[in-house]
Amino acid sequence: MQKKKWSLADIEVLEKKKRLHLINSCTGYKSANLIGSISSDGVENLAVFSSIVHLGSDPAFLGFILRPTTVPRHSFANILETGYFTVNHVNESIYKKGHDTSLSYPKEQSEFEIVGLTPEYQNDFIAPFVKEASVKIGCKYSSHYDIKENGTILVTGQIISIEAPVEAVDHDLFIDLSRANTLTINGLDGYAKTQTIERIPYKKL
Amino acid sequence: MQKKKWSLADIEVLEKKKRLHLINSCTGYKSANLIGSISSDGVENLAVFSSIVHLGSDPAFLGFILRPTTVPRHSFANILETGYFTVNHVNESIYKKGHDTSLSYPKEQSEFEIVGLTPEYQNDFIAPFVKEASVKIGCKYSSHYDIKENGTILVTGQIISIEAPVEAVDHDLFIDLSRANTLTINGLDGYAKTQTIERIPYKKL
Repeated sequence: MQKKKWSLADIEVLEKKKRLHLINSCTGYKSANLIGSISSDGVENLAVFSSIVHLGSDPAFLGFILRPTTVPRHSFANILETGYFTVNHVNESIYKKGHDTSLSYPKEQSEFEIVGLTPEYQNDFIAPFVKEASVKIGCKYSSHYDIKENGTILVTGQIISIEAPVEAVDHDLFIDLSRANTLTINGLDGYAKTQTIERIPYKKL
Repeated sequence: MQKKKWSLADIEVLEKKKRLHLINSCTGYKSANLIGSISSDGVENLAVFSSIVHLGSDPAFLGFILRPTTVPRHSFANILETGYFTVNHVNESIYKKGHDTSLSYPKEQSEFEIVGLTPEYQNDFIAPFVKEASVKIGCKYSSHYDIKENGTILVTGQIISIEAPVEAVDHDLFIDLSRANTLTINGLDGYAKTQTIERIPYKKL
C-alpha cells in the first residue's frame, strides 16, 4: 500500500485549509452531536460538536472541547448562565441542517429557527432538545478546564437523562448506534453512516 | 418511534454492567485507536483507546482520556518516561487483536506479542507504531490535566508525524477514513464500519 507521509516540518508549512483538513481527519471518527442550550433571557442556541467524549459511568460524565477561534461561544455562555445543556445525536435526516449550525449567526437569533430544527422541552428541564434527534441526553454543567496549549476548554457535564429508540437498545442497555441511525463525523465536514460489524464478547484472562 | 427513557434516578440504580454499556454508548461514535509506547527499559506497550479527541490544528494537538479504574496505566507511565507515543487507527483486519489489548497483562510483557500485532520503528522515533495499521500518528507528550470529577486524566500530545494511504487522501488533504478502512467504536465493545455519505461544501453567510 502506497503511503503519504508528513513530518513535523511538513505539517508546519502546510497551507492553512489543508492543515485543518489533515489534522482534523487524522485522529479517526468523531461523535456527531448537536448541543442545545438557552440563555437566561430565553434565546435558544444549537451548535454541532464533534468532540464529545465519555468521561465516566458512575457518576455518568461526558466532556467536550470548545475551540477558541471558531464561532462565538454562545453555547458556553448559555451553559454557564443556566447550568444545563442537551446533547442530541445527528442522524441522516438532519445532518445538513445540523452542520449549518457551525456558521456564525447573531447571538439574538435561534439556530433552531435558522436551520429548521425543532426545539423540544421536556418536563422542567430548561435546555432545549432537538425533536428530530433519536438519542437525546440531558446534562448538568459540572466544570471546565483551560487547555494551556492552545486556549481550548474542556467542558464537563453530568448526564442526568437519556432517551433512545426502543429498537436500538440491546438487553444489556448497549445502544446500537447504527440501529439508531446515528452518524459519525470525519474531519471538519465529512459525514458517514455505519454498520455494526460485531460486539466483541467479554473475556477475562 | 417508541422511546426508552432513563432519569438520573434510573441511571443511579442501574446494575453496574448495564450502566457501563448505556453510558459508554450514549455519547455517540468514538475513534478507534491503538496507542503504542515503550518503557525506558525497552518493554513495548499497546492499548486500545476510544477517547482520542482533536484539540487543535496549529500547532497540531490531540488529547485522550485515561481511566483510573481500568487496566494498569502502563501506557501513561511509558509516555511520561520517554515523552513519546504513537496513535494507530484500528481497521477491520486488526480490530479483534486490538480489542484484546484492553485485557490486563503483566507490565513486563509486550501486548504487541501477546495479541499478535507487529511493532514498527520509524527512523529515530522511540515509540513503536503498529505495522498493520494504515493511518499512523507520531506524538510528543505535551501535558496532562487531572479531571477532578472522577480521577480521569486528559493527556495531551503534539502531532509530529502523520502517515496515511495515498488512496484515502483527498486533494485538500482530508483523509477519507472509510477509504482508509478505519473503524469506529460504539460503547465498550462494538465495532462498526462506515460509508461516507458526503463532505458538506464550505459556505459562509
